[in-house]
Amino acid sequence: MTMIEIIEKKKLNQPLSKPEIEYFVQGAATGSIPDYQLAALLMAIRLNGMNREETAMLTLAMTASGDVADLSSIDGIPTDKHSTGGVGDTTTLVLVPLVAACGVPVAKMSGRGLGHTGGTLDKLESIKDFSINISEDAFIHQVRTIGCAVIGQSGNLVPADKALYALRDVTSTVDSMPLIASSIVSKKLASGAKAIVLDVKTGAGALMQTTEESIELAQTMVHIGHDAGRKMIALVTDMGEPLGSHVGNALEVKEAIDVLSGRVTGPLLTLSLELGARMLLLSGAAGDIEEAKAKLQNALQSGAGLATLKKMITAQGGDPSCCDDTSLLPQAKVVKDVPALQSGYVHHMDTIALGNTTQAMGAGRKQKTDIIDHSVGFVLHHRIGDSVTKGAPIATAYAKDEQSANDAIAEIQEAIAISDEKVAPCKLIHAIVDDQQVIRM
Amino acid sequence: MTMIEIIEKKKLNQPLSKPEIEYFVQGAATGSIPDYQLAALLMAIRLNGMNREETAMLTLAMTASGDVADLSSIDGIPTDKHSTGGVGDTTTLVLVPLVAACGVPVAKMSGRGLGHTGGTLDKLESIKDFSINISEDAFIHQVRTIGCAVIGQSGNLVPADKALYALRDVTSTVDSMPLIASSIVSKKLASGAKAIVLDVKTGAGALMQTTEESIELAQTMVHIGHDAGRKMIALVTDMGEPLGSHVGNALEVKEAIDVLSGRVTGPLLTLSLELGARMLLLSGAAGDIEEAKAKLQNALQSGAGLATLKKMITAQGGDPSCCDDTSLLPQAKVVKDVPALQSGYVHHMDTIALGNTTQAMGAGRKQKTDIIDHSVGFVLHHRIGDSVTKGAPIATAYAKDEQSANDAIAEIQEAIAISDEKVAPCKLIHAIVDDQQVIRM
Repeated sequence: MTMIEIIEKKKLNQPLSKPEIEYFVQGAATGSIPDYQLAALLMAIRLNGMNREETAMLTLAMTASGDVADLSSIDGIPTDKHSTGGVGDTTTLVLVPLVAACGVPVAKMSGRGLGHTGGTLDKLESIKDFSINISEDAFIHQVRTIGCAVIGQSGNLVPADKALYALRDVTSTVDSMPLIASSIVSKKLASGAKAIVLDVKTGAGALMQTTEESIELAQTMVHIGHDAGRKMIALVTDMGEPLGSHVGNALEVKEAIDVLSGRVTGPLLTLSLELGARMLLLSGAAGDIEEAKAKLQNALQSGAGLATLKKMITAQGGDPSCCDDTSLLPQAKVVKDVPALQSGYVHHMDTIALGNTTQAMGAGRKQKTDIIDHSVGFVLHHRIGDSVTKGAPIATAYAKDEQSANDAIAEIQEAIAISDEKVAPCKLIHAIVDDQQVIRM
Repeated sequence: MTMIEIIEKKKLNQPLSKPEIEYFVQGAATGSIPDYQLAALLMAIRLNGMNREETAMLTLAMTASGDVADLSSIDGIPTDKHSTGGVGDTTTLVLVPLVAACGVPVAKMSGRGLGHTGGTLDKLESIKDFSINISEDAFIHQVRTIGCAVIGQSGNLVPADKALYALRDVTSTVDSMPLIASSIVSKKLASGAKAIVLDVKTGAGALMQTTEESIELAQTMVHIGHDAGRKMIALVTDMGEPLGSHVGNALEVKEAIDVLSGRVTGPLLTLSLELGARMLLLSGAAGDIEEAKAKLQNALQSGAGLATLKKMITAQGGDPSCCDDTSLLPQAKVVKDVPALQSGYVHHMDTIALGNTTQAMGAGRKQKTDIIDHSVGFVLHHRIGDSVTKGAPIATAYAKDEQSANDAIAEIQEAIAISDEKVAPCKLIHAIVDDQQVIRM
């Protein structure tokens, strides 16, 4: 078996065998196969695809290329949730404490912000002294004692993905369904969870911009999970506008605390309950979706969810007092409203531009080494379909200075299109995908 | 314009523009574009193809990546012939002197043997003291005075092809029609000829194994030549068996001299006259194909062709006495007949295996640095369709020692299939392709 033969086979649109897939994945991880051969293979995969079996084998080979977390000492079924990335997408901070409060262990490895999308780790670091770097032993101990933990990727997880992703980025082979799916799922498998709920975002601010593409990605990932012996279900959910009203690190933590305190409802809570309910179902903590939602509602209303968040913050070295007084979170220096430029209806949002605005304000990184300003971002006062009045605030900017605030105001006004035409609100959930079926909503 | 955008476009099956093609070709020639990006683009071209216009632009950009020979000081239309490579394919040594003797200047840059195919330069170096390395000035002077010269590639011809070919070889992207055609034609354009006759081999021993693929390659190359303002015609000719009966360097020179002396006829002479006649037509030295063939026949029968070969050998420092006495060419130490293993008809030949046998005997190189034994090879006594008798010689091996002779005998017996079934002889010319039409024979 040589790399040229493997490239040749995929070029001729033939399925690759398990040993062939393992050969090039190991070669990518160790650097023993030259980049130009990997690049040719990636383009052949992008153009000729991979079948379900190949994609599953690719994912497992990638998972096996590095460390795999061992969660076997945790009682119950360790359960995880993964979002393909969005703006104002704070479900993790709401559902992790709620699900854990219902007795399901959540051992979650999260990521940082990427491009226009936010990252759970950056959000959590808004909380004073909160640490996302804890040892695997401490991580498992925390899940065993208080039911949940959210940390950064530790150890040498999926080195093959690091190598292949870096190459895909510079060879125009990012947009390949089997490569996207295997990249996401291999990291989930390596992080050790036995049951995984996927939140596949769709629309203007998402990786996949059409519902059908998003459903295809969801199906591909759920099939891999099934073939790898994990329980997996995917919701295809809207990213035509930000999910929560708050965008920015401390602002999103505040919104999550407000939701867990029962002060705020809306799409962020709705989706957190939908995703969380599937986590309860997959882990066996509820027999059907209604029972699962009732349990989560109970954890919300009883304050058990917020109490669990406080315990998690304390366990990870943070100061939980922000849960009782969100004004203790980092506060922006300049707060200015964003007036609507005309009266009418919110017609659509350039969600990527909104994400980029928060990044430009300092909430995200342009380069890996940039230091984040946790206080900045904006709060939207309207969703698509709402009527607005010229001059009234459609949003409020939280900025580090006047200049940044004024820039953000102009960008937000540009990104939110207002028209005379009345439009319907966005549908929140577009499809539910499991290994057996696709339910379009 | 970035390389990623160029890869993206070809990935999406869109035609590349002239500036985009020139950008990556220059980048390949200078090394400014990383191999992994070139590799991804080559695979996208292999899988999505290039249209006629793109292929012509690619070829011209490759030609422009290095030196281009200036033959403008040569009177008349400098004319060239190129073969895609075969076994026992010695037409250059026969037709160059004949065509030059008819007054058409032939300024030919040839190559060395590659894989199972022989190379004109290696054959010419069988002649004592013959030099294939002469300066461009001396080359042009020789063509002006005696009408022809055959030399190795001089200067920095088509550096982009060197870079791209090396990558194609290790990324399974050799078998791409636009890449093959542009590689061949760019070198022909850079060598300066204004009229070019292509001999596209087809069959078991050729680059393209089916007639239709060979016709497609012929058409692609003729179209490029036309678009580049050159006169070009292609013959698609048989390589289901070796063209001449002699295979090996000195053996092929001997056969060419025998043909030019009028002692030997057969497919080698027939094809040399067909190709040579097109060279006369393209250069304007004959009004129609019958007149062209008559002129060549006249040059053959008058001895003018052999006399021109002698002049060329002398001009390039060689000893022409082998033209009068072929026993002065290098002689193999061991000569042994290859007996037929059964009676019947020659059914087919594994022509690649036969080429590899001569290479293994020492007539070709396994590595660039190998030294060639010019004396070795074999002579076939039968062609496909001939009847043979068990024990009678079907070939004679010319080897460096007993062991090598015995190995070659076994390989030749294995490569030549004899069956009870009577089969028709091979058709020599399968198609004639010019810019207007394809004539299937």
